[in-house]
Formats: sequence, C-alpha cells, structure tokens
Amino acid sequence: MSGRKDLSNSEEVPPIDLHGLVRELFPINRSLTGAGVRETLAILARHVQLELREVPSGTAVLDWQVPLEWNIRSATIRALDGRCLVNFADHNLHVVGYSKPIHKEVSRAELAEHVHTLPDQPELIPYRTGYFADDWGFCMPDNLWQTMQDEAYRIDIDSDLSPGSLTYGELFLAGELSDEVLITAHICHPSLANDNLSGIAVAVALAMRQARLPRRLGYRFLFIPATIGAITWLARNESELGKIRHGLVLTCIGDTGPFHFKQSRSGAPIDNAVAHILRHSGHPYEIVPFNPYGYDERQFCSPAFDLPMGCFMRSVHGTFPQYHTSADNPGFVKPQALNQSYEVVASLLDLLDANWMYARTDGRGEPQLGRRGLYRAIAGQKEAGGASQMDLLWLLNLADGKHNLLEMAERAGIPFGRLQKAVRLALDADLIREVVLD
Amino acid sequence: MSGRKDLSNSEEVPPIDLHGLVRELFPINRSLTGAGVRETLAILARHVQLELREVPSGTAVLDWQVPLEWNIRSATIRALDGRCLVNFADHNLHVVGYSKPIHKEVSRAELAEHVHTLPDQPELIPYRTGYFADDWGFCMPDNLWQTMQDEAYRIDIDSDLSPGSLTYGELFLAGELSDEVLITAHICHPSLANDNLSGIAVAVALAMRQARLPRRLGYRFLFIPATIGAITWLARNESELGKIRHGLVLTCIGDTGPFHFKQSRSGAPIDNAVAHILRHSGHPYEIVPFNPYGYDERQFCSPAFDLPMGCFMRSVHGTFPQYHTSADNPGFVKPQALNQSYEVVASLLDLLDANWMYARTDGRGEPQLGRRGLYRAIAGQKEAGGASQMDLLWLLNLADGKHNLLEMAERAGIPFGRLQKAVRLALDADLIREVVLD
Amino acid sequence: MSGRKDLSNSEEVPPIDLHGLVRELFPINRSLTGAGVRETLAILARHVQLELREVPSGTAVLDWQVPLEWNIRSATIRALDGRCLVNFADHNLHVVGYSKPIHKEVSRAELAEHVHTLPDQPELIPYRTGYFADDWGFCMPDNLWQTMQDEAYRIDIDSDLSPGSLTYGELFLAGELSDEVLITAHICHPSLANDNLSGIAVAVALAMRQARLPRRLGYRFLFIPATIGAITWLARNESELGKIRHGLVLTCIGDTGPFHFKQSRSGAPIDNAVAHILRHSGHPYEIVPFNPYGYDERQFCSPAFDLPMGCFMRSVHGTFPQYHTSADNPGFVKPQALNQSYEVVASLLDLLDANWMYARTDGRGEPQLGRRGLYRAIAGQKEAGGASQMDLLWLLNLADGKHNLLEMAERAGIPFGRLQKAVRLALDADLIREVVLD
Repeated sequence: MSGRKDLSNSEEVPPIDLHGLVRELFPINRSLTGAGVRETLAILARHVQLELREVPSGTAVLDWQVPLEWNIRSATIRALDGRCLVNFADHNLHVVGYSKPIHKEVSRAELAEHVHTLPDQPELIPYRTGYFADDWGFCMPDNLWQTMQDEAYRIDIDSDLSPGSLTYGELFLAGELSDEVLITAHICHPSLANDNLSGIAVAVALAMRQARLPRRLGYRFLFIPATIGAITWLARNESELGKIRHGLVLTCIGDTGPFHFKQSRSGAPIDNAVAHILRHSGHPYEIVPFNPYGYDERQFCSPAFDLPMGCFMRSVHGTFPQYHTSADNPGFVKPQALNQSYEVVASLLDLLDANWMYARTDGRGEPQLGRRGLYRAIAGQKEAGGASQMDLLWLLNLADGKHNLLEMAERAGIPFGRLQKAVRLALDADLIREVVLD
Repeated sequence: MSGRKDLSNSEEVPPIDLHGLVRELFPINRSLTGAGVRETLAILARHVQLELREVPSGTAVLDWQVPLEWNIRSATIRALDGRCLVNFADHNLHVVGYSKPIHKEVSRAELAEHVHTLPDQPELIPYRTGYFADDWGFCMPDNLWQTMQDEAYRIDIDSDLSPGSLTYGELFLAGELSDEVLITAHICHPSLANDNLSGIAVAVALAMRQARLPRRLGYRFLFIPATIGAITWLARNESELGKIRHGLVLTCIGDTGPFHFKQSRSGAPIDNAVAHILRHSGHPYEIVPFNPYGYDERQFCSPAFDLPMGCFMRSVHGTFPQYHTSADNPGFVKPQALNQSYEVVASLLDLLDANWMYARTDGRGEPQLGRRGLYRAIAGQKEAGGASQMDLLWLLNLADGKHNLLEMAERAGIPFGRLQKAVRLALDADLIREVVLD
Repeated sequence: MSGRKDLSNSEEVPPIDLHGLVRELFPINRSLTGAGVRETLAILARHVQLELREVPSGTAVLDWQVPLEWNIRSATIRALDGRCLVNFADHNLHVVGYSKPIHKEVSRAELAEHVHTLPDQPELIPYRTGYFADDWGFCMPDNLWQTMQDEAYRIDIDSDLSPGSLTYGELFLAGELSDEVLITAHICHPSLANDNLSGIAVAVALAMRQARLPRRLGYRFLFIPATIGAITWLARNESELGKIRHGLVLTCIGDTGPFHFKQSRSGAPIDNAVAHILRHSGHPYEIVPFNPYGYDERQFCSPAFDLPMGCFMRSVHGTFPQYHTSADNPGFVKPQALNQSYEVVASLLDLLDANWMYARTDGRGEPQLGRRGLYRAIAGQKEAGGASQMDLLWLLNLADGKHNLLEMAERAGIPFGRLQKAVRLALDADLIREVVLD
C-alpha cells in the first residue's frame, strides 16, 4: 500500500503542469547571476508569492564574496570566411559559464585550449563553467570539433562581467509553530532539465500546495544559485537557522530512475521520515549515507550549521550519462516521473506536519472500546484483531507521550496514514490528547 | 546442553500430574464470572494456599465496571416435536458466553442470527462470548446446523445475569527482597484445554514448587478472568505495582508446538532471561516482539503501567486450527509438553532468583588459583583452560559489580547454571562477594 | 591500498634483523626468573636503553608473591650403565620449568610420573612448567620414551630454587603528552621462537623506531615474565595506570598465519584503531572478542584495572600444532612474517600518535577552496570530486571538534593516512586547527 494513498486517499494531481513548466524554463540561459536567473524567478512568481532578493556583487558572505554579475548576449565561432560554426543562440551550453568577453582571431591550437568536448559521447555538448577563472571557453560535440581543422578561427563572445547582484527567490509560508521545513532547489544551471528544472518545478508545485493547506509548521522555499546562493542565504539568515526542523534539497527528480535519499549529516528525523514514506510508496528507492559532495547540503550541513537536511533525488548526479550534457533536456524528464516525485514529497510534508506525540487521557489498562462503539460486540471470533482494530490498539498502547506517530507506525509496521485514522477515532472518543510541544 | 540440566542437574518432575489437572478442570463451565470460576479455584486451592477475591458487580475498575455475574443451568434447542437437537449439557461451548435467559419458539431465520458455526471446520463447535452484548446465542458444528431445516424451533436458555461478583485467585509467596515475580493465567475459558487449562495447571505446579524453595524474590500467582480480571487486579493493586520486577503471562503451553515468547513492551530483563533459557533448553523456540494484541500483557503493558512482563506460549493463539474450538480438548494437550513447559519456566524462575551481581574481593590481577586448589599444579599443557577453568576465569574477570550473572553467561557464551557453579567455588574461596542491591 | 603505504609511503624496514635476534635469543634458557632472563634482557639492552628491574623473592605483589629464583646448570637421565639418554644440554625443553634439584636412581614406574610426552606428536618435546609445584620433571619425544624400557634410571637435575629476584626490563620514551601507549612481551619462555621471541624482537624494534621519532604520546615497553611479571609490574605501578591510553600485548607474531587481534575487555579506541589498520593492511586478519584466557591481557584487563589493551597475534596460541613444543623453533618463524608484524604495529603506533580532533577555523559553509589553490579552476566536469578532493571535503565537513581522524577515516571509508595528507593541506591553508586536549 503506498504512502500516498494512505495519506491522501487519492492520487494527488500537482496544481501545475510540471513538465510544461520545465519546458517553459528550459530555453532560458541561467548562471550564478544575471538576467536568466531573474527571468526564471519571474516565471515562478506567477505561481507563488516569491520574494526576490538582490545581493550586490562584492558582498562578503562567510568565506566568500558575491561574484560579479555575468550576462551574455551572443557568442560564435566562425571560420575565417565568415561561416558560423558554433553559435550560442543555438544552445546555451555552447559557452562556458562566466566566460569573459572576447573578440579575436585565434589559431586552432589556441582555440583548442578553450574548447570542451566529450570524446566518449561525441554527439553531446558538455556543460562547463569557470565562475572564478577569468577565462573563456566554448563547448561543442566532439564530432563537430573533429571537423574543425582550419588553421584559425574568429571568435566573439559578447558578455559582461561587471558589478551587479546575485539574485534568488524566497517564499515563506508561516505555520502555527515557529519551526520550519526548508525546501531548496538550485537555479543556476542553464538548459539542463533534470538538473535542476525538475527540482524547481516540483518545489514550486509544493509551495502552491502548502500555501492552500493548514500548516502546523512553517514552509520555506528557496530558489538559489548553487553553493554561492546557499552561502549567501546562510550568511544573511544565520540567526534564524535554529528554526529549521527539517530540510530537503530537491534535485534531479524528473527522470525515471529509482528514488535516492541522501541522509542528513548527523542523523535527523527527516531521515526516518523519508525512509518511511519511500518504504510505503511502492516505488523503488535507495537510502544513501551523507557525504560531503553533491548539492547544497554541502553548505547546509557544514559543521557549524549541521542542519537536519537531506538531499532528495531520483538518479544521482554523475551516475547517468545525460548528466551535465545537452542530453539532459526536457525529453529526458518525464511527466509521470515529475508527478511521482511531487506526490512522494507531498506525502512527506503531510507526515512531517502531523508527526506529533499523543498520550492516553488515562493510560491505565485498555479503555473499554465496546461502550464507545470501537469494538465488535461479539468477541472471541478468529477474525478479531483485524487491521484497523490493530491500528487502534497500537495507538492506544504507544500513546504514552514518548512515541511520536512515526515511531508508532514504524513499531507497528504500518503506514503513517493508517495511524492518522486511528488518531482521529481516538481523539473523537477522548481516549488520547496531543502532547503539547515545549 | 539444556538450561534445565545446568540449573537443576536432573530432570525435574512437576509436583502434580499436570495433564490430570487439565482433565479434571475441563468439564467445568467457566466464564468471566460465576460458579464455574469458583469451582475451578476451589480445585486449585487444594494444592496451594490460594486466596479467593470477590469483587462486586458494578465496581468501577479503571475505565471499566465489574460486570453482572452470569450463571447458566441448562440450554437446549428442540424441534417442535420435542426432540432435543442441541444441549448445553453435552458441551459447554454450545452456548455463547453471557447469553441472557430466553424461552421461546423462534423461526429458523431468527435462530440463524443467533447461531455460530465454522463452515471450514464443520465438525467443530466454535467458542463465542458476548460479555457486554445483552444477547443470546448457540454454537454448534456446521454439519449439524445444515441438517436443521425445520421452519421453527423451541429454544430454552436457563441462565442468570444478575448482580454478584467477579472472582479471582491470588497467591503470594514472600521472598527475602520486596521485589516480586508475577505469574498470571486466565481462568475465564470454559471447556478449552490449551487455552488456558495448560497455563493454569503449570502455574499451580510452579506455585507449589516455589513455595518449597528458598526465595530471594517474592512470587505472586494470579488466576484471573482475562481482560476484566487483569483490569480489576491492577485497579486494586495500583500502589504496589512498583514491586514487580519480572512478569510472565502463561497461556497455551500444553500443545507440542515450539515455544514462543512475546517480549515486554519497553524491553526488560525478563526478555533476556527467557531468551537465555530457551537458547540453552534444547527445545525449538521463537522470540516475538511485543504487540498490543494477545492476552493480559495488553493490560499489564498498557502505557501507564508498562510492567516488565512478557507472554510465554507454545503455539500462538489464533495460529493453530484447534484454537477457540471444541478441538482444543485434553487430547490436544500432551503430558510431555506440559512437563517441558513446567521445566523451562522453573529454570527461568531459578535464573531470576539467582541473577545477582558479584564483585571480586580484590579485583587487581587474577587471584592465585593454585594456592587455593583451583588450578592444576602443572600449567603450560595444551589442554589448560578447560571448560570449568574457563567458567571460573570468566566469573573472576567479569565480577566487577557491573555485570549480573546472566550478562556474564551471555558474554561467556555458556549456560547460566555453569556460572552458578563457578560462583559457589569463588564464594567459598572468598574471591568474590555478592553486590548488595539498593 | 595498505595502511602502511598510506602512512609511510614506502615499505618500512625494521631497524634490526628481527629473525637474527630470534635466532640469537633462542638457545638461552628462560623461565620466570633466573640467569636466562637476565642474559636475554642484556642482549635487548644493546639495542634500546632498557632499565632492568630486580624484585626480591617473597615480595608481596597483589594476590601473589614473587617466587624463588630458579637456575639450572645441568640435567640428565642416564641408563644405569651410564649412557646419557636425555640431556638438558641438548634442549632447554627437556626439563620441566622450576624443577627442584634431584639426584637419585628411580624405577621406570616412578620416572613415568615425571615424564611428559606428546603421543600424538611423537617426535616433539613438549613444553611444561611447574612454577609452584615443588616437583621435578622431564619432557621428551614420545618415540624416545617408548624405547626406554629399563627397570631403573639414574636422574640428575642440578638446579637451584632459592631466594633471588624476579627480573624484568622496562623502557619509557616520554612524549609531549603524559598519556602513554603500553607495549608488552613476555620473556619467560625458554627455547620457543614464536611464543614469544617473535613478540620480544618486534617490541625491541618498535622501541628503537619510536625512540627516533617525534612523539605526542609516551611509549612504554615491558619485557616481563608472564602472569607474575605483569602482576609485579601492576603492583609497583598502580598509581600510574591512569596514564595508559592504549596498550598491546605482543605474542606469536612470527609465523605466517593471518593476524588476530583480541579486543580489549570493555571496548577501547585501540580496538577501532587496530581494526582500521588491519582492514587497510591488505593482509588477512580476524578480530576476536576479549576472553579471560590468553596472555597478560588477563592481568591488565582484570576488573579493577580494566586497561584499554588488546592482544596482537598472528596464529592464536593453542591453535597451531607447533605451540608449546620443540617445533616452535626459529625455522617456524619467518623473517617476512616478523617484518610484516613490525610494519603493521608501526602503522598502528603512527595512527595512535596522530589521531587527534580538528575543528574548522570557521565551520560555516565550505571554504572557498579555489582562491587557496585547493580546487580546480574549471568546475562542473564529470571528473570533479576525485579522490584527494573528496578526502579534503570529508575532513572539512567532519572537522567539528567532535570527530577524531580515525572516526573521519572510518566514516569516509578511506585509510587514515589519506586523511593525514588532507590535514596537512588544510592546516597549511589555516582552514582547520587542532583541538587541544583537556
């Protein structure tokens, strides 16, 4: 039985066409900074009340500085007879991210030092950046590069690297409690679909969903450039980090691979919650321990912050051949895979929001269920102790103010959602009360 | 090597014919209350100094009330020509427990709503009760019911449901210490042998045994109707529950199935003790985790009590086809199986009574065993370190006031009884002392 | 990849010919006390600054007394016609250790009570002692004994058992910290090579090595008779035992069997350290739990001391056929096996000396590695996150003042030595600092 069905009783349709949003965002040229990031966030802001933050270049953030803003208008490699051989207008990946402007004729040998190809995947354009390199470069299919045997070429990169700002989007949905769930997605990759338009699309849909639901916890969504964006946000919100009770980095969740969850650095309730949801989801999955390579969990789980966050993925970065190539396009990302990812994380948020402790109003012995209409009148038959009866017995036995619902569900070996039903019955019969948090 | 042999050095014969007692008790019609319970307890009281408790109907006990007392003299279903088709005098299971008195002619259709059969086991009478149902009913073989095709029948149930009392038996054998071991068996089932005349017979024999032995701990035996009996006892003894150091519910221990031990709710020393005894018993067994369905561990392990009690069984209720049918008769219960159950629990009680901590009188280095006659004079031979020598070395190494004997035995991988022998040697040589309890 | 290579980058040659030392020491007749022990220690003292301790016979040490000193000059069994059949001059094992002086003619029957052979290994002389037995005896091949069918024999044992002293050697190499590593080897076995000239030789070589290296920890080496030597040293140093942070008993480390490490009694860091070194050594090995039989860990791990010590072996005493026989000779011990043992323990000492905690100078987020020359300028390529990059990321993530280097290495799944390299990089870049011990 899947977690989704238990938690919501019906297949939950995302509030937005996830694959459509991926396709809409794909052509935009994103980077750490610049117009493409702003354009992307503007599209997201049509769906949720996103606040846009601009942090000036040069701002000191922890060990780093906010970089110069990079914008690019065009870039080409031409034969000396004028034929255009490589054109940024054809594909955002053709230019190395943060390439400085350049306009000159270069020998093939000099150009070769600035060209990146994938000889093992000769039809694909690789994705490369050089954020702090003060350099320039082109990426292209190796097949194309092998045909380019002229002695010299004309190269033009019409870009700016100049003081501006780093842009990110933030959305906070307050809950009854001050504790928060943090959901982040990185927005710095140009035309790459799984990494990470999939994360962006699902995060927006989740924000729309949570905005419409009652919320015990607050929900904060960040759309940030990787690394420097996380560093910047952490630097600006250092005093508020204690409110983060659970967190999730969403990335590469649009392909059809099995789910992967990378656990938090120090062990946190999110680890058990995700494991429970995945175990009951009916989908294949794998739990992997924390390691310090990957996405922005590297920053959130750095030793001084050590936030209770994990990273939620389908295929793991670097393990699928489309990773960081032009093959990571909207065709690689599937509508059904995006929808499943949305549903699984939605179930997880429902669990996190409902995972409280309960205590029996009087925990001495079992309550007499019969006079409350909670027990069959004729006992003794073999079929006694059916599933829902057992769920209620588990709840009444473990409602001791020490077990939260997830711990009860794990001990009972049943999905969280089944215990939630028993909670409703028992609350209605005044058999249990919620244990107030400190 | 079996725990029994280690602990007692010879096969221990129960002080009473266990199967004979089962046969003697079988014909009596027991229920939650009534004459059958009193008759049963009177038979037990011939063997042990049982105190009988009577708690008036209507007494509030925790979330419950002591029910009306039920007594039944006769019950029949007759054809309208007077032929008796079903007669309570033939089998106690023919009438649903707590059936109210009734004398009338009913259509077959109306009767059908009050008849219980087992279509899959058409020769057996099922066991049914309706304690709080204000109803009546008959149980019979499905084969018989299929032959009853008349349009109407005459039914007569000559029973009383009236204020009286709930009856249970209690026996306490004081020990040197105020801590107690609680052993309970339920006495509310009519003619059913494994469930639970087996538990009653073994509990009585254990009480006889413990009465004759020196006792560090106290031993309390309860013979109570299930659920309401446990609830009633708990309500009346709430302030004394802290003395219960170990507890065991005995049930279904007369069949030839493998032993099953259901662990305590929160983990308790009884779990390790039973596991140790069973592991060294030579008998097949299985340890199962606590769950909130079953026998009176449901009450003793409710959250506000959470007593250190488990449930000791052979075949598990509900998993054998004879369960709660007329096939659970004295032929299903075997003398050898009852005796084995007795021996295993007797070994367990010996372990619980002897499982103390010891400390070396001087724990610095090994003591010189040779000058105390505890070491072979010629050392260095290959065969040094034989079994009993090793047992003594383990004891002397772990006698640090932090390991109890069971923990030592588990770490040494030897039966508890072998360490007991080493304890006697070491105490005699003044090498260790018992650690006084707080 | 072996720990050795990671830790020292090249095969480490022992500072002394280990097998040569075994051969040099083999002919000396050692026992608990006496000239042979002094002669042995004098040879060791040529290599290290060994301090010799003499403790008078009769001195009370814990539960024991220092025994009389035993010296032996000659011993023979002769036929009555004068032919010498068994001569101590031929093999030290021919006389039971601590045999009292005797000069008389005995019947074969009387002699038989004092003769030890190995019928299953009829060509080998067994090793036997009778330290506290006030007795005498001969050991010989069973084949020889079967040929001795005369009615009487002339026996002469020219030995002394008289007040003298127990002799042991001690070497302490002070470190920056007051904490110590204790390495012990027993020196009481006569002509037996693996048990324990192997341990003696490797311990001396390690002492020479540590004497030449910078040392955070102190290193104490003991060359002591088994049991009574350990008891004596413990009695004389009781107030200083708290300084022992790690300890190792070395024995039977010259044969070609797999390594065996017997863990400490209560669990100690040495257990994890040895397991790590062995896991990465490339050699076959087995970890065995503590038990109270074996070598001097019996004394060091007695309950009142419970020192954090294990026993390091290749083949385990009693499990190889040469054990405690004349077949445990220098031919059984192999130079390569001794050298491997030396290298493994040397790696272990390097680990113990370097296993500190580190903390990031600023643990908030990742430091910008690029501007410190610690990151490739062009990121984003598939091959990012190579091995050494990952080592540094692990270090920077776990340098939180709570993980020591071994814990980091275990979590990262890499050899300790690789993290040490990352430590050097990070210290040079001021990214981490060592956490000062309390």
